[in-house]
Amino acid sequence: MIKQNDKISITGGLLDRRVFLKKGLVFSVATLSSDPLHATRDDARLPWMKTPGATFSNYGQPSTYEQDVIRWTMANSMAGGNGVSWTPLHKMEGTITPNGLHFERHHNGVPQIEPERHQLLIHGAVEKPLIFDMVALLRYPMTSCFTFIECGGNSNAAWRDEPIQVAAGYFHGMASCSEWTGIPLSILLNEAKIKEPAKWVIAEGADAAMMSISIPLDKMLDDCILAVYQNGERIRPENGYPLRLIVPGWEGVLNVKWLRRLHLTNRPSMTRNETAKYTELLPSGKARQFTFVMEAKSLITSPSVGQKLENPGLYQISGLAWSGRGRITKVEVSADAGRTWAEAELQQPVLSKCFTRFRIPWQWDGKGTVLKSRAVDETGYIQPERSALIAARGKYGYFHYNAIVSWGISNQGEISHVYTE
Amino acid sequence: MIKQNDKISITGGLLDRRVFLKKGLVFSVATLSSDPLHATRDDARLPWMKTPGATFSNYGQPSTYEQDVIRWTMANSMAGGNGVSWTPLHKMEGTITPNGLHFERHHNGVPQIEPERHQLLIHGAVEKPLIFDMVALLRYPMTSCFTFIECGGNSNAAWRDEPIQVAAGYFHGMASCSEWTGIPLSILLNEAKIKEPAKWVIAEGADAAMMSISIPLDKMLDDCILAVYQNGERIRPENGYPLRLIVPGWEGVLNVKWLRRLHLTNRPSMTRNETAKYTELLPSGKARQFTFVMEAKSLITSPSVGQKLENPGLYQISGLAWSGRGRITKVEVSADAGRTWAEAELQQPVLSKCFTRFRIPWQWDGKGTVLKSRAVDETGYIQPERSALIAARGKYGYFHYNAIVSWGISNQGEISHVYTE
Repeated sequence: MIKQNDKISITGGLLDRRVFLKKGLVFSVATLSSDPLHATRDDARLPWMKTPGATFSNYGQPSTYEQDVIRWTMANSMAGGNGVSWTPLHKMEGTITPNGLHFERHHNGVPQIEPERHQLLIHGAVEKPLIFDMVALLRYPMTSCFTFIECGGNSNAAWRDEPIQVAAGYFHGMASCSEWTGIPLSILLNEAKIKEPAKWVIAEGADAAMMSISIPLDKMLDDCILAVYQNGERIRPENGYPLRLIVPGWEGVLNVKWLRRLHLTNRPSMTRNETAKYTELLPSGKARQFTFVMEAKSLITSPSVGQKLENPGLYQISGLAWSGRGRITKVEVSADAGRTWAEAELQQPVLSKCFTRFRIPWQWDGKGTVLKSRAVDETGYIQPERSALIAARGKYGYFHYNAIVSWGISNQGEISHVYTE
Repeated sequence: MIKQNDKISITGGLLDRRVFLKKGLVFSVATLSSDPLHATRDDARLPWMKTPGATFSNYGQPSTYEQDVIRWTMANSMAGGNGVSWTPLHKMEGTITPNGLHFERHHNGVPQIEPERHQLLIHGAVEKPLIFDMVALLRYPMTSCFTFIECGGNSNAAWRDEPIQVAAGYFHGMASCSEWTGIPLSILLNEAKIKEPAKWVIAEGADAAMMSISIPLDKMLDDCILAVYQNGERIRPENGYPLRLIVPGWEGVLNVKWLRRLHLTNRPSMTRNETAKYTELLPSGKARQFTFVMEAKSLITSPSVGQKLENPGLYQISGLAWSGRGRITKVEVSADAGRTWAEAELQQPVLSKCFTRFRIPWQWDGKGTVLKSRAVDETGYIQPERSALIAARGKYGYFHYNAIVSWGISNQGEISHVYTE
């Protein structure tokens, strides 16, 4: 219930982002209890209050009542290890992705690597080619960063002519965010003594695809790390155990899992994943190549497709924004299909190249409308409308889709994915 | 190898905390490869490079090679659900505790709660007693905070006369750190309309112990949240599914799991867990009560007991610091039993009431010594030496042990827990 003296200056029912902190704004969705001690739904104590609970576990698992909070997987029927799995962003809150739900993109399955036998070779344009085993690597100094990883192909269903109707996470969830800890690449490359004409590094994984990709040496020396830990524990097999290259803010494919080799060269190797794939065909017939940076993007996760607004009233709109170029400086939300915009609250701290949670209160009047969110990053880049993205890049680029996402709200509170232009 | 021109001004072999960023400082623990392409340990490709790997999983698990990275549990042999489990801090890095490894303290086991039947009652000194089910609660606005939870009894083995020789995590690991997301308590309490003479809130869980505890109302209105999510996903059963009270910076026992009731009163209820337990007997014969805040503390996790320095040379000392009073402002490390101290690097961002990772390089000369760490928080509080803590509080307080921890290094590189005073 909104009181008369609350300012509601923004159209579409969006409220000042700090309005929840004021006294007097109540949701009125709780049940009023006239007889508190006997008012709970079950007359007697619930079963789990009557007998001792389960004992301790060495490693915990989610509740059995949360078995629908899973990665949604889609693999090649002829090669089960080639495909993707999506993070269920629409069932999640905050900014961290728990390790069990981090998205996957594999080219030939998940190798079950024995850490004692895994090695990393650094060679090519260096004075001292070096081989590291895990025992040696664990002696090196480590650093940590909170950063997202997003597949270059994330959200690509939005290039289709008709809006796809799947849950937000199973559409945009090839993006996840963790605290990664490992060795700054600069330390290892300096130890190998980089020499002319090194300009690129070819990174290769130890999977059965020997997935490899070319990365500019400058980026490797800037902020890349050789990660050993993800969210405090050793990286999981499907995320690169025992060693993953982290390339903050750049396409997921560059974050090579099961890293076994770094080859310093004067030029990229022009492998499949930087020519036939992870390049974007433009309207001119040319293709963009080496489009490393993931541009600013945002997504309302609640409410979103598959959820339902049960009745008119006060809601909190919540979503995620991120940019491969640095910090998110602003997320604006529209509740009238883009006519007007209101600034959302950003969860603190806002970190560079990291998921940023935004939230804003919204008074839904029960009428049909469209919700949108728009991210702005520290470079001033503004997430584009879909029509602007298509005007610039055509519809056949497949990768790097980052346009504004629109959720249609029916007057029944049903939510669908819509295109507004 | 340290070069001549590197400044080593600190005794005990501790180096300037930024020395790793300088060129030329190398570890020389990698193998030099004269024939890079044929130099790896296995002549042929390793098995996991020759056949397709495992397929996708809906919810990932740690590598089978990491099965020793577990919570260590200790339960009452007559009541298996009464006891604790420790987070293996000595096997971890960064600041986040993955949900499967968050420490546990249960009084009568882990209830397996059906979320559809769980309710929260707010009553007592309020104008409108309210009952919430999970559907109603999920309509409320949420906020997130990164915060540690530490059991008031953490580290209590250090009160013993002889230093206990167990791994750092199984000694100090009743402390863990997560991103918690939920509803600010102030919103719910305001909706219930607090009335005189409310000063305390009795929080009660839905476990078979009906664990309850008294919390000052001011703290509840300040920064407490009713958490629904931990590190992005719904809270696990052993951490309070579906609802946990988060009381940032205060004793773990106040962070009531499986929260079912908040009773507003004019005084504490003087239950077992605030009289017989979670109080500290002082030398005077009196006991401290309502000692809510967890004071500043730090711990070197690497190197630590059970690990071994294989040879003299360069190491990175790494550990955790935290304070229930706010931000950590400084962590100092001594490599000469407390004679001299050097300031460690703090992992950014440093957040209030949150684990803070510190790291500092150390050149070990192969001689026996003692490593210590000392935390300072934003109130100016300095973590005390063990002798100072005992002088103030005696040896029979059991709870709130936060003195400086000392790791003895033998000239063989073996590490043991020692008392230095």
